[in-house]
Formats: sequence, structure tokens, C-alpha cells
Amino acid sequence: MEKSKILLFVSFLLFFQQTIFAQKKAVDLIISGGTVVTMDTQKRVVENGAVAIKNDKIVGVGAPDEINKQFIAKQTINARGKVVIPGLVNTHTHIPMTLFRGISDDLDLQEWLTKFIFPAEAKNVTEDFVRVGTRLGLAEMIRGGTTTYCDMYYFEDAVADETQKAGVRGVLGETIIRFQVADNKTPEDALRYSERFINRWKNNGLIVPALAPHAPYTLTTEQLKAVKKLADRLNAVVVIHVAETQTEVSDITKQYGARPVEYLAKIGFLNNRTIAAHVVWANNEEIDLLKRFGVGVAHNPQSNMKLASGVAPIPQMLAKNLAVGLGTDGAASNNDLDMWEEMDTAAKLHKVFTGDPKVVNAEQAFEMATIRGARALHLENLIGSIQTGKRADIAIVDFDGLHQTPFYNVYSHLVYATKASDVRTVLINGRVVMRDRRLLTLNENVIKKDANTYRKKIINSLSSQ
Amino acid sequence: MEKSKILLFVSFLLFFQQTIFAQKKAVDLIISGGTVVTMDTQKRVVENGAVAIKNDKIVGVGAPDEINKQFIAKQTINARGKVVIPGLVNTHTHIPMTLFRGISDDLDLQEWLTKFIFPAEAKNVTEDFVRVGTRLGLAEMIRGGTTTYCDMYYFEDAVADETQKAGVRGVLGETIIRFQVADNKTPEDALRYSERFINRWKNNGLIVPALAPHAPYTLTTEQLKAVKKLADRLNAVVVIHVAETQTEVSDITKQYGARPVEYLAKIGFLNNRTIAAHVVWANNEEIDLLKRFGVGVAHNPQSNMKLASGVAPIPQMLAKNLAVGLGTDGAASNNDLDMWEEMDTAAKLHKVFTGDPKVVNAEQAFEMATIRGARALHLENLIGSIQTGKRADIAIVDFDGLHQTPFYNVYSHLVYATKASDVRTVLINGRVVMRDRRLLTLNENVIKKDANTYRKKIINSLSSQ
Repeated sequence: MEKSKILLFVSFLLFFQQTIFAQKKAVDLIISGGTVVTMDTQKRVVENGAVAIKNDKIVGVGAPDEINKQFIAKQTINARGKVVIPGLVNTHTHIPMTLFRGISDDLDLQEWLTKFIFPAEAKNVTEDFVRVGTRLGLAEMIRGGTTTYCDMYYFEDAVADETQKAGVRGVLGETIIRFQVADNKTPEDALRYSERFINRWKNNGLIVPALAPHAPYTLTTEQLKAVKKLADRLNAVVVIHVAETQTEVSDITKQYGARPVEYLAKIGFLNNRTIAAHVVWANNEEIDLLKRFGVGVAHNPQSNMKLASGVAPIPQMLAKNLAVGLGTDGAASNNDLDMWEEMDTAAKLHKVFTGDPKVVNAEQAFEMATIRGARALHLENLIGSIQTGKRADIAIVDFDGLHQTPFYNVYSHLVYATKASDVRTVLINGRVVMRDRRLLTLNENVIKKDANTYRKKIINSLSSQ
Repeated sequence: MEKSKILLFVSFLLFFQQTIFAQKKAVDLIISGGTVVTMDTQKRVVENGAVAIKNDKIVGVGAPDEINKQFIAKQTINARGKVVIPGLVNTHTHIPMTLFRGISDDLDLQEWLTKFIFPAEAKNVTEDFVRVGTRLGLAEMIRGGTTTYCDMYYFEDAVADETQKAGVRGVLGETIIRFQVADNKTPEDALRYSERFINRWKNNGLIVPALAPHAPYTLTTEQLKAVKKLADRLNAVVVIHVAETQTEVSDITKQYGARPVEYLAKIGFLNNRTIAAHVVWANNEEIDLLKRFGVGVAHNPQSNMKLASGVAPIPQMLAKNLAVGLGTDGAASNNDLDMWEEMDTAAKLHKVFTGDPKVVNAEQAFEMATIRGARALHLENLIGSIQTGKRADIAIVDFDGLHQTPFYNVYSHLVYATKASDVRTVLINGRVVMRDRRLLTLNENVIKKDANTYRKKIINSLSSQ
């Protein structure tokens, strides 16, 4: 009798629980307890917040109570004492060049390119090299909380394959350049490669296949127009280096009677699917052109400093609300893929260069590394902020290191005090790719071993010049 | 019979061994197997090297075979696959200001000082505050491989006490400044404090007590002369901010008819015991003056950038072989005590500022953080390089992180790829103060707890303004 009463009561409880649960939506994951820096339009910072994730998407952001009322999760990550941020967006790199990290430094751009980079590439770049270098770069980027990157290199099919295998988001384009490279003999070959590449990857949930003409000075006007035509036909984004050096500006001006951005505008090359890397040398009229055409800009402060390219007019671009993101550039010219250092450097560089300590404040620097970077890649509807409906690209970051103690302001702390090594857990497209600093989609030891095998080959190839 | 033969043989072996050992010098520690970057006059880099340490000194540097032939150690540290470098020298900071890390950013210098820093100091700086902030800063510096630092703050007796307790080397000076501060009412009080301070600490193996007049614009000529007189009498080094901003240059020029460095030279203030911090605004004649008087310069690239002070003429100073070191400045203006970022930033900043990618190369940047920094502090006979006879201030650094893979050039990798978090083990004065990233002389959890108690106090003190 007693027993049956208990059973009845338990049954009732289970039924009641199920009813309650039936009103809660089942989700895959709830991140709970951290300070959520949303980077949404109101720039909400939710202290002791929670984020609910189902499949690849964010389905709820708010206080843990609200979230727990609405959702029930298979898995929970406790982020108490940590910050929860949108995954960082690296708007410009050449990922396989991680294998050339520090191969030569402190040289004139021409000497660096012609004596080291071009020979090293000519002698070493193969599909396997690209795969090894890509895995190395992906691992480094995940470790630092980067969840999306924009790339331009060779064998980009292999880059895309490695990227989606590792679960990382990429805007990827095969370099189209005037001279013969490892996988394409001519720009026309590269165009054909690009069309196949775009058709192959266009429906992938992580890969945004792009066209990647190298620069205004390494392609003819006709070739640039052919790229644009194909991009329009395929509705593809176009990544291009623009106005990186003063030499480029004077060469283009001499040849075409217009500065690089003006020239590209004039030939009908620019639109709201263009991503222009560097844009160090743009005057006010050119900034207006970029704004008018909706061009995204990838600012690479550390690379521009190291190669002495110049200081891009970022405060002016921000004043006009341009879509400016931050990029690391390739590891051969930086020498890492660390977006935290780019934020810190961007904030400091423009202050000293303009003499105004108020320009590029911490919030703006963090914005360039997240939502404004997403805008630069024309992906602002998909990524760059922690908002319901966006893809779940999120980094959970320790905030209690000695170098982060004490803590006063979240943006200041993210930009001026936090390091890549403080990133603890990373999600991309709803999938946990690093948990408590352990990579889940890549094997760090194998990556290092493979990279060190290439190291020897590369050293030999250069010594036998 | 057999047994006694064996015993005899064993006795002989033991005797033989002892004889051999008697010829070997007993030392405390041998670091073995790493790449030793000596920073000695020949800039020797010993691959698979070893360093022998007895008491507080380095007694041998070379190949492990050589070292093992000469020395027998109580303790060995295996540094295989790592780099062994001289401990980094932070030539300028205000260590207790770690408690104000990120308290306000992105402001004009005057606004930042008068609205935040000065009120925060007036309401919070006590001896206990200084002790807590010093321990926090010491822990952060050890973690990043900094073994010597130069400081200027208040309650410097407490700074010195905490520093020697933690086993860190410091050139420390009590600030002498025109207005009333927490521990001294007048510059004259501060001078008396300084004399007592110097006499108290002058024979300490770790502390170099200094005089620290704040700046040419915060003391009268008479007060500066009084400082100089005392420094000469006590044979003490003198730390001073010089020519940090253009405002200072114009103010000093208006008042004294000479630019800051000229003015200090003219009043007989400069000599080969002076350490001048910042020196952002020095012309060629002033650089020559600094050289002629043997003044050490503390270059703080990140602080100068963040406060938009300007870019110091470091390439010109290096061309004249000045004693230029690197410094972090206080954590309120940087916002960390990370010498690796200062190296990286110094190398990059001067390239973009001069337009010459060859200036301040990686080796020069590393030199500024080590032996040239030691010269800047007038301690080059004691520290700054791994050489027999020098104090054993050494950092052992991981060199196999993903962000350090692959490895081509040691200086490039130290400056452009390595981070503070790669520092594994640190020795100061022969004592291991961090082993395998565990602090041995400071309690990290207590430090964080104490710092967070002050955080609350500081926030309250500013909100009640």
C-alpha cells in the first residue's frame, strides 16, 4: 500500500516534470555564468549571463534564470568568472605561410619577397605543404579564439578542406596573380580554378568561397574586370590587396592616372562584396569611395608596421563608419596569427600616429575584431556578435590571470590586458573545437611534427639557392 | 675470497670517483641542454648549451660536456628544446600601479591624470596598498621572465622589502615631487626619506636604492640640484622622467630657455648614474648630450603610444650606441608589465615610424630588453647577459608552442613570436623563483585576493568623488 503510494507520487512527479520540460525548448548547450559581451547593436554586456545554443545557432542570450526558464540543455558550460565573447574575426591572412614564420625579418619588402618568400614558395609550396601549414595556422587561431578567417593563398581547395575538417569558418580564395604559381600557370587558369572552387564550396556551412585577385599591380585591368565579371555571375565575395605601400600608389598612379582605390572604382571593380586588405594609403576621397561602394577593409596593423608599409587612416574610416576589420596578415610578416595583439596594437598605434589618445578606443578595437570585422567580410548577418539567430561562434576567456588583475572595464581588459593564452574554450558553428585549452578537432603534436619536417625541407631549399 | 676482491674493487672505484670529483668544482645548479642566448660581447648563441651556477653567480657557460667536466651540481634543470636567456630588464615602471590597471583609458594625459590617477592615488595609496600592488606586479613580472626592474613610486621602503622577499632585483627610488604625496609632504621630506632609504638598502644583494626626482617640470632647479648633490654624496643612481611629451618640452623651454635634456645638462644634473625615462622628444644635440654624460635611457614604446606621447628617436640612439633599455611603464598606462610585447612593439613601431623596415631589428630589440637594458640601469657588470662572473638572473623559455612553430631564427622567434606565457622557469641571483610556471616566492591566490579587495575600495573611492 505504502509502496504503491510512493510509486504513484513518483509517476506524478515524472509527469509533472515532463510537462514542464515540454514547455522548455531542448537545446544542445547552455553557456552560463560568464560576462557576455554581446557586441549586438546595443552593445549589451550581460554580467552573469547565459547563452543557449541549438545546432549551429544561438537561440537565446540573457540572464541564466531567463535562459533556464526557456531552455533545457544536453550540456552546460560553466563560465563563471570568465568572459563570453563573439569568436574573433581575422579578416586577412595567408594561412599556409605559418610554415614560413620568421624565415626572414627586418628587410626591405622587395628584398624580403625576392630573396626569401618567393624562392621559398617556389621550392616548397605543394598541396601537402598547404595542408600542413593550414592545420598549423588553424590550431594557432583556435587557441587564440579566432573562429573566422579570410584567406588568400594557393591550393585553396586544400585550405578549404582542412578548414571545414577542423570546424573553422573561412572566407577563402585562390590567389589570382600574373605570374606562374605552384598550382596555376596563368591568371586565366586561376580563374577557372576559382569557378570550380566556388561551385564546390558554395553550400558548405563553414566555407565562404571567394575570388582572390592578388592586387591592382599584379593583374591587368582586363584581368581584374574578368574577375569582377565572374564574381558577379557567381555572387561571390572578392578579396584583394589594395594600396599597401606608397610604391604601389605611385606605380598605379603612373600607369593608370589614378590612385589604387580610385582606379578600382573607375574600372567598376568595387562593390559591397569586395574585401580590400591593407588600404594603408587612401586619401579622404578614396575613403568616401570605399564607403559608397560598401567595401570591407582588412586592417593589419602589425604587418604594416613590421614591413614599414605605413599607418592606415583607420580613425578617419571609423569616423565614416566604414566596415573595417582587423587581420594578422600571413605569419611570415607578423609573425603570428594573434588577434589580441592586433587589437592592442591597433588601439595604440593610431593614438601615437595621430597624437590623439582618444582615437581607436578599446571598444572600437574590440569591435573591429568582432562585429565590424564581420561587416568587413560581409558576414554581419551570420557572425560577429552574440545574438539570437546568429551562428554560435563564441570564445570563453579567462579573466583572472595575474596580468588581468584587478579588473575595471571589460573592453579595456579585453584589448589592453588579455592575451591569446587566456582563451579557454572555443565554439564554432555550435561545435566545441577547444575545451579547457585542449583542441578537439586537431592533433597538436602531429601538427608540430609535420611542421618541423617542412622546416628542414625549407631550410635546405633556401641554403641550396 | 671472491667477495673481498669485489669489495676491494668497489672501494677502488669509489676512491677513483671521489678523486675525479675532487677535481670538479661543486656548484648549486646546472642548466643543461637548451639553446643558451648569452648576449655576451660576442653575442654567442650556444646550441645545446649548459650554464653552471654557484650561489648567486654564473660560474660556467658552454657545451654540456665541458660544463660537466668542470662542475658537479646538487641540482640540474633539463632545458632541452628550450631557450635559456638572460632575465629580462624592465627599465621603467611604477609597480604598485598594477592595482590601477585599466582604471581609465583612451583619455588625454591631463584628463587621465587629474580625473583618475591623481584622485585614485590620493584616496588609496597607503603602505599596505603599495605592498599589495608590488606583490601583484612582481608576480606578473616573474611570470614573464623579468628579473630586474627599475621603479619609482611612494612608500618605496615597502616596495624594496616586498621585492627582496620575493627574490627579485630592483633599482628602486622614492618619488621626489613638488606636491604633497601619501608619505611625504614636501620634496625636502622625500629627500630625507631617500637618504635613509639608500643607507638602509645599499648593501642588499638584490636592491639598488636610487633617488627618483619625478621630472624637470615637477621640481625646481634648486630641488634638482639638491637631488644631484645627495646622489653624488651617496654615489647613488638617479631615475627621472625626461622629455615625455611635447608639452613638457615647450614648458621647460619657455621657463628655462632650453629643452629638457639641454636644461638638465646645463644645471649639472646628468652623469653616468642617471636613468632617464621616456626621452621621447630629444633632438640630435640632446642625444649627443645623453651619450656624452653616459645617461641610460628607458624606452617605453607601448606607454608612449597609448598616451600619444610620441615616438622616441631610438634608431638614432642605437646608431650612437646609447644605453637604451625597454620599459613597460606603470600598468595604469600600458596595461601590463609584459616585456615581450615591448620588444615586439619596439621592433615594429620604429620601422613604421621611420619607414625603414631594417631599423630596430630583432636582435637589437632583444638586446634592449637584456644587456643594453642592464647598461641603461648602469648594472652591465652585474646582469644582462649569461657570462661567467655575472649574477645568475636567467629565464628558461619554451620554444615549441604552436605560435612558435616552426623555428628558424632565435632572435626573431624571441621578439616576434614568443609570449610572456612561454616563460617556464626563472632564476634570480641564483635562486629559482618560478619553476615550471609555479611561483616559488609568492602566493598567487593570496595576491589576487588582496588585489581584488583593493579593487572594490578603489571603485568606491572614485564613485564617491
